[in-house]
Amino acid sequence: MKKIGKQTISLNNSPVITGWFSIVGPKEGEGPLNKYFDVVLEDSVFGEASWEKAESKLIQTSVEGAISKAGLSINDIDYIFAGDLLNQCTSSCFGLRALNISFFGIYGACSTMAESMLLSSVFVDGEYGENIVAATSSHFCSAERQFRFPLEYGGTRPETSQRTVTGSGAVVISKKGNGPKIKRVTPGKIVDLGIKDANNMGAAMAPAAADTLIAFLDDTGEDINSYDMILTGDLGKIGSDLLKEIILRNGYKTDKLYDCGLLIFDLESQDAHSGGSGCGCSASVLSGYIMQNLISKRIRKMLFIATGALMSPTTTQQGENIPGIAHLIEITCD
Amino acid sequence: MKKIGKQTISLNNSPVITGWFSIVGPKEGEGPLNKYFDVVLEDSVFGEASWEKAESKLIQTSVEGAISKAGLSINDIDYIFAGDLLNQCTSSCFGLRALNISFFGIYGACSTMAESMLLSSVFVDGEYGENIVAATSSHFCSAERQFRFPLEYGGTRPETSQRTVTGSGAVVISKKGNGPKIKRVTPGKIVDLGIKDANNMGAAMAPAAADTLIAFLDDTGEDINSYDMILTGDLGKIGSDLLKEIILRNGYKTDKLYDCGLLIFDLESQDAHSGGSGCGCSASVLSGYIMQNLISKRIRKMLFIATGALMSPTTTQQGENIPGIAHLIEITCD
Repeated sequence: MKKIGKQTISLNNSPVITGWFSIVGPKEGEGPLNKYFDVVLEDSVFGEASWEKAESKLIQTSVEGAISKAGLSINDIDYIFAGDLLNQCTSSCFGLRALNISFFGIYGACSTMAESMLLSSVFVDGEYGENIVAATSSHFCSAERQFRFPLEYGGTRPETSQRTVTGSGAVVISKKGNGPKIKRVTPGKIVDLGIKDANNMGAAMAPAAADTLIAFLDDTGEDINSYDMILTGDLGKIGSDLLKEIILRNGYKTDKLYDCGLLIFDLESQDAHSGGSGCGCSASVLSGYIMQNLISKRIRKMLFIATGALMSPTTTQQGENIPGIAHLIEITCD
Repeated sequence: MKKIGKQTISLNNSPVITGWFSIVGPKEGEGPLNKYFDVVLEDSVFGEASWEKAESKLIQTSVEGAISKAGLSINDIDYIFAGDLLNQCTSSCFGLRALNISFFGIYGACSTMAESMLLSSVFVDGEYGENIVAATSSHFCSAERQFRFPLEYGGTRPETSQRTVTGSGAVVISKKGNGPKIKRVTPGKIVDLGIKDANNMGAAMAPAAADTLIAFLDDTGEDINSYDMILTGDLGKIGSDLLKEIILRNGYKTDKLYDCGLLIFDLESQDAHSGGSGCGCSASVLSGYIMQNLISKRIRKMLFIATGALMSPTTTQQGENIPGIAHLIEITCD
């Protein structure tokens, strides 16, 4: 068995991240990570007739970009693992249908980038494929009208709310090649502590991030201080503060917690409330800023923990809680 | 590499199906497969306050039932792979949150049972887990109001339409034990031949079923006539006729094509139009009728090809096609 402890998997063949690509919308491009994205759009419609079609084009662009940057062609790719926030995961299905590659649709809400990378890594580690793509996307405008209000309504949002990132990120995970390696992964459990406020996703997801992080540390016996960065997906300001509090209460101290939702926007000047969110948030930050830091070895050992809020407008209307989930990937340069 | 040909994976450790459970609604219970289901509900609300909550209870019941029938407890299960048709896959997320098992959310529309079994089999084959649950569900009433019209509207449906099955099926896939074995799997590609009629899903999915079946036969060199059964998920009458036509044109002859959507209802007496559909259709037929035929060795070698229509009401409103996907599992008793 390649399982360590209760929840963690050891990838003894250390799959390699050989290609990566990020594309974001104009507002994300105005943020502090501007120079790290491969493409910043001038407008969020991307020349398409709808925001949903624009989102499909985002993921198609990032997947093709990552394959190209890995020095590979479409025919070298064994499978794609992808999913997104749109109903019935349509941005992935429609954006990637033309590629003619075996496709696994997944759904982990905003944890999708970590889930797709986790599954791709296991497939490569087990020699079920040589080059696999993991990808996801989100779009502010398609998410707002699906989950909240049509933009035309002009609703105001509370300070606890987060802003869905318009963007996509994709990576190629390979058996051979140069690049950061994926050593261990921890698939998360669904954690439901009774949060019901759909405008405070960070609070709903923080307990899941803590649960998976603590499971990894317990399973592996690793020292939390050996990591240069512990990067969550999109907890935002409120969720990140909660995560710190929870892991501190569990006896873990670190000053290396970062969150993609806090990195991608300047909260004050960009009016981004509690920070960025959406599948595309952690995907574009990881495939841009983080990959460049890994390549330059400014980051040598990190944990990527993307978090998802498992809800829909229907479940919220029916008075349900918002369960969270978080999947973890350990990435090292050695 | 464990890949054979272009798309197929050989599972040399032959994962075993050690547990299975099926639960269906009253209309499905009135059909020809009545005696093969573990539970037939007396009403489709299942004691819950909404159809969505009823669907969550369906999948929870089938997963717990399958684990119990495998002679295992919750603590023996390494991971669950599950998904469903509801927006943001909420019946799986909410139905399975109490189990405290690492969870992979997946989305393959009505191909979800084959996708979850495929991923579970690969994880077991590669020694990433010993016992993994694959499950899915659907519910006629929650699907109608989400995808078509509220039931109260009383809309009539064309003869080409299919009826979403109220039901759930779950299997446990294990490293050790007695039961039918999974030998090879073929993950499908997204196939889009330009079908746009959301009331004719069979036509949208048949080309995907043919594509994956032909890929498997090409990759393995197997004789199509060596199979006792080639079982599609929910092509219904129109889709099944189309599949026959496509594979015949490609030079393959067989009289062993069956479809879960045609097996579960008596189309004439049950007013089921073109047949059953929904994730729960193939899941409940496989976990009931088919498993009992495999155990009694009336079926010794079969292919299970669940098919999915990758669309949403939004994509249909925006004039998009309905791409299809099909994943294949080879099951044998030896």
